[in-house]
Amino acid sequence: MNPAHPLDNVRVVLSHTSHPGNIGAAARAMKTMGLKSLCLVNPKSFPDKEAERRAAGAWDILTGAMVCADLGEALSGTILAAAITARPRDLSHQVFDARRGAIELLGYARQNPVALVFGTEMSGLTTLEVSKCQMVVHIPANPEYSSLNLASAVQLLAYELRMAAEPGSFSSAIGMTSVAARFEEIELLFHHLERVAISSGFLDPQEPKRLMQRIRRLFARARLEKEEVNILRGILGACEKRMNTRGVISTDDPAMPDK
Amino acid sequence: MNPAHPLDNVRVVLSHTSHPGNIGAAARAMKTMGLKSLCLVNPKSFPDKEAERRAAGAWDILTGAMVCADLGEALSGTILAAAITARPRDLSHQVFDARRGAIELLGYARQNPVALVFGTEMSGLTTLEVSKCQMVVHIPANPEYSSLNLASAVQLLAYELRMAAEPGSFSSAIGMTSVAARFEEIELLFHHLERVAISSGFLDPQEPKRLMQRIRRLFARARLEKEEVNILRGILGACEKRMNTRGVISTDDPAMPDK
Repeated sequence: MNPAHPLDNVRVVLSHTSHPGNIGAAARAMKTMGLKSLCLVNPKSFPDKEAERRAAGAWDILTGAMVCADLGEALSGTILAAAITARPRDLSHQVFDARRGAIELLGYARQNPVALVFGTEMSGLTTLEVSKCQMVVHIPANPEYSSLNLASAVQLLAYELRMAAEPGSFSSAIGMTSVAARFEEIELLFHHLERVAISSGFLDPQEPKRLMQRIRRLFARARLEKEEVNILRGILGACEKRMNTRGVISTDDPAMPDK
Repeated sequence: MNPAHPLDNVRVVLSHTSHPGNIGAAARAMKTMGLKSLCLVNPKSFPDKEAERRAAGAWDILTGAMVCADLGEALSGTILAAAITARPRDLSHQVFDARRGAIELLGYARQNPVALVFGTEMSGLTTLEVSKCQMVVHIPANPEYSSLNLASAVQLLAYELRMAAEPGSFSSAIGMTSVAARFEEIELLFHHLERVAISSGFLDPQEPKRLMQRIRRLFARARLEKEEVNILRGILGACEKRMNTRGVISTDDPAMPDK
């Protein structure tokens, strides 16, 4: 049997939320990142139509939400709770930024339930609430305007947890199913390009300067695919053919200038 | 004099946004992370009371927002644009996850304007819109429910940009002695290339297939410099001239085959 996915062990706790729309938006944010467990401490209005509307397709999170009378009840069974705050405070706690906090939390979530605790929209968590958590996580923000929407804060932490849960699995910056061109294919492209640059009159072979060096540098950055080399050589070949075809005639007409 | 902060060079482009509330929430999300420049392509309703309400304290972003008729106008002056998509798509550009994409973008934003491009709430970006960008960024999400709210997507990317901007956190090493080509310069290159592909007989304009899409993808990866665009257009122009010059003669000789 597979052990539970660590994200299944993460509980999102929203304390005394004022706007039901934010509860719905938080549920949606959780679900987009694969979090499932929502706990509401004394929400102002729940259930609520506005929460349902903003939850979009995350109704399952809303309907499964647990409603608690206080934070102690909401944290029951967890082994680690992180108080999410706008800025570091209360120096008695260990303070992490969102990224490191997520990594730390997830390490524990592999075995046991952990919690993220968010306060009210207006004033965040009380000192008493923070004191019930074992760590403080702050979200790096603009010091002149750090007023994150509650659901946005949930979104960022949920995202960091997902990133921490699956390191490396989303990071490939590669163009999918394509086949990379081989060295010799790219060399033939360069020769072809140089030939056309000369026959078109753009490049003077007596004074080539660094043209081909620049072109090599450009295409080196692109990491050419086999199919792309074929396309570029196809265009070059078509230009060459058209130029040469005309060229056969022009030799019959020496008065015709080359340019 | 201090150079501009790289975040000041990041333009957030929202294309055809349906709900004005999302525009306001996006403005707020931007401001929390220190982004300032918002551009709206053909929004359904703007200015709008609901946008102002959701912007909370980010009115300055809203009132400074630029409204454009199309994406080309919105990207004018940028040297790198990232299409934000829910998932990597067919024949896509170089694909980055949000973290690596932010690092890549920020590397360029230290010198020049760059853009993040977000599509509509319902259907995201069109293929044509994606084709005008040079990279694709996707936000890692729950594969069973990847429906991020638009403002949440803006929040996550803005956050990753801020994280990338913090000293010590970026690793992208770019040779910056060169001058990056601007969006409109690269568009002119594509038009030129297409014209030559057609006039050389390589591309049948009646059946273009996906040729230009492939070429866009190739050069998007290369992050063209101004000087490179000049070289490529110089070669194209020389070929064109040679083909046309000969073409004047060939009309005198209808027996001469084109191929």
